[in-house]
Amino acid sequence: MRTIGVGLLGLGNVGSGVVKLLDDNQDAITSRLGARVAVQRIAVREADKPRLVDVDHALITTDVEAVIADPAVDVVVELVGGEELARRYVLSAIAKKKHVVTANKALLAVHGDEIFDAAEAAGVNVFYEASVCGGVPIIRALRDGLASDRIDQIIGIVNGTSNYILTRMVEEGLPFDEVLQDAQAKGFAEADPALDVDGWDAAHKLCILVSLCFGVRVKLSDVKLVDGLRPIRAVDIAYAERFGYVIKPLVIGRDHGETVEARVHPTMIPRRFLLAGVSGVFNAVYVSSQALGPSMYYGRGAGMMPTAVAVVSDVIDGARDILAAAHSGVPMRLRVRDWHDRPIRDAGDLESRYYLRAAVIDKPGVLAQLARVLGDRAISIREVVQSPDSDTAKGSATIVLTTHMARERDMQAALADFAKLDVVVEPPCLIRILD
Amino acid sequence: MRTIGVGLLGLGNVGSGVVKLLDDNQDAITSRLGARVAVQRIAVREADKPRLVDVDHALITTDVEAVIADPAVDVVVELVGGEELARRYVLSAIAKKKHVVTANKALLAVHGDEIFDAAEAAGVNVFYEASVCGGVPIIRALRDGLASDRIDQIIGIVNGTSNYILTRMVEEGLPFDEVLQDAQAKGFAEADPALDVDGWDAAHKLCILVSLCFGVRVKLSDVKLVDGLRPIRAVDIAYAERFGYVIKPLVIGRDHGETVEARVHPTMIPRRFLLAGVSGVFNAVYVSSQALGPSMYYGRGAGMMPTAVAVVSDVIDGARDILAAAHSGVPMRLRVRDWHDRPIRDAGDLESRYYLRAAVIDKPGVLAQLARVLGDRAISIREVVQSPDSDTAKGSATIVLTTHMARERDMQAALADFAKLDVVVEPPCLIRILD
Repeated sequence: MRTIGVGLLGLGNVGSGVVKLLDDNQDAITSRLGARVAVQRIAVREADKPRLVDVDHALITTDVEAVIADPAVDVVVELVGGEELARRYVLSAIAKKKHVVTANKALLAVHGDEIFDAAEAAGVNVFYEASVCGGVPIIRALRDGLASDRIDQIIGIVNGTSNYILTRMVEEGLPFDEVLQDAQAKGFAEADPALDVDGWDAAHKLCILVSLCFGVRVKLSDVKLVDGLRPIRAVDIAYAERFGYVIKPLVIGRDHGETVEARVHPTMIPRRFLLAGVSGVFNAVYVSSQALGPSMYYGRGAGMMPTAVAVVSDVIDGARDILAAAHSGVPMRLRVRDWHDRPIRDAGDLESRYYLRAAVIDKPGVLAQLARVLGDRAISIREVVQSPDSDTAKGSATIVLTTHMARERDMQAALADFAKLDVVVEPPCLIRILD
Repeated sequence: MRTIGVGLLGLGNVGSGVVKLLDDNQDAITSRLGARVAVQRIAVREADKPRLVDVDHALITTDVEAVIADPAVDVVVELVGGEELARRYVLSAIAKKKHVVTANKALLAVHGDEIFDAAEAAGVNVFYEASVCGGVPIIRALRDGLASDRIDQIIGIVNGTSNYILTRMVEEGLPFDEVLQDAQAKGFAEADPALDVDGWDAAHKLCILVSLCFGVRVKLSDVKLVDGLRPIRAVDIAYAERFGYVIKPLVIGRDHGETVEARVHPTMIPRRFLLAGVSGVFNAVYVSSQALGPSMYYGRGAGMMPTAVAVVSDVIDGARDILAAAHSGVPMRLRVRDWHDRPIRDAGDLESRYYLRAAVIDKPGVLAQLARVLGDRAISIREVVQSPDSDTAKGSATIVLTTHMARERDMQAALADFAKLDVVVEPPCLIRILD
């Protein structure tokens, strides 16, 4: 079985996540791809620095070009960060006909067109899912899923730190400075928070999204309207609420035909708009396209493992391309998954919380009868409401209750028991609860 | 330039959407793919039936096998529906080494493993993005985007008709029967609504999702817990609200290691859970995976054009594979897009509604001064609130207002004008509003 070799440039947070993920999911990845994926060399700045993961020290070198040139390396993963060095390494990898995976939004926002042009000329691919919204596969959705459609507008929450700060300001009524300091203490915000709270990190990502969606070469310096969070006070949040809005840190891109719009600023959005429910460190991108209409993609935008998911999924995509070229044949899609014959759990074994509404005859002891039936089936009640029906002449009442977790089998047995009770007027309504 | 030929089996709603989309977006698709995609033959049951789109009558035949066998057809798009005929046609196309695109959830839920096994043996791909959630690229997200991760749980709203009915029951307090009849009159529900409202359409889709996510061969008959909407009354919806829940028609799949859980039923979910905000005909799938954590994918799950987006995006994927095989080389990703040099709209030309909060000296005529500044810049006020500050000794007040749509340039000019007013104590806070 063929091994696809990965050369890792950088072994910080994300690089360590990549090593861990390839290790944890090795069997599943091998089975889905039909080939092994293995880290063959790792370039670092300081060879002896302690690392977050155990790696064979023999893989580590400080010679970046040696990693890129290594014949065992098929895919180069650039996690160096910054613009100039990363640009040089990526162009070097492309020149050696290696596929490149990068998480570097600044690199693409500033040197994207040079890099994509070089890759196309060399016949290799540059993958960059991790550069926007971490593990949320938004780049694939835009590039492949909507490949047949025309996108009119994207509205995104793409900076988790800003969204976290605004969410806490809204939910706890705290001032900006206090939340920022707390976020810094917790590691959610950088010591220098300017990139995040002043909108520049989001602006980098917007460049990539606008380029991909609208096919324009847009650089960071083209985005003229970039505002941050600093002016927002508690009073603004209160008024937003009064007017039915929630303040969210948005990037907005629109295709106007002759021109393209790109802007970054905190924005009030209607409370019912789906993006209003995207809270904390979460990211989401809302897309309007002509044939599909609205769609949205949501998830964790940063962090070691979410970003590693995007990087390794990109490596797998690159590996598929390499295998296809080697076979001179049609690249099989990733298999549906390797089949494992595991049983679907029996319905009776499924567990839920339940909501139950029963119409009963309004006389003493009815609730006790219902409760006993449930207790006999080991179903524990969490909440009960009994109320007489408005048409009291009927002498009936409604009992509504919710349960703690219970088994479907027990609940169905309880329902059968209810049916035998004289006091229960009609079969109860059962709705399962998901907390 | 090479042409990738499509053979269409069926020219109903979705088939017509495919023809229209390929037509509308022909240039963009050609540019992204580096090849043309064209419908070469169309099989229908009745050759002379009127159609929703204009097609060259010479393309139409009633001989399905002739379409499949046509050497000009590279990709067979199965839109016949049903199980047995569709199965025969798909297996025939695979045997002739054609890639297959299908929107047929019943086919895959019942004959999926036979079809995927045949495709793998023949070295062709079967694409089925359109079988679940229409144009939302959920299959790609699970198959490619999360290829490096392990999925623990999926929770989906995958039947638009059920969600539409429940949404109207919640929002308008209408009974099930009345909403169903109205939905049928509007074409959102079938004359025989059982597939939708009793959960079977959703169960088909759950089979596909569970197979893909957990790698188990699951057939429709394996899903034992399938409940529909019919028992739900207005009172249940009211209680759900009282308890902080919203009732949604869910499919749930969970990986328990030794067993896999698969269930379909209406469920109360906390009002704050993101799926609670998925209303009307919209679909969404919420995924929990080990490294990424939660992610969600949202959009229109049915309809002519949304489904056509999924089908044509799948055709483009198949076309990429064909081009790769022909070149014996690495298949280029779809290009970022063909570059068009269009300017990013000047920040001053961007339009928004605005929220403005100004701290002012509390004396007569202040509001008039602010309003005049805005009026002079042709900015129209929509809503104003003026209130004295709690510390009245300071003699200051806060004015909050929102505007109708205005240009950034005009608003910035107005802010500059405010700064010149003696009555404005500090620079106003400005937040843009997105409705």
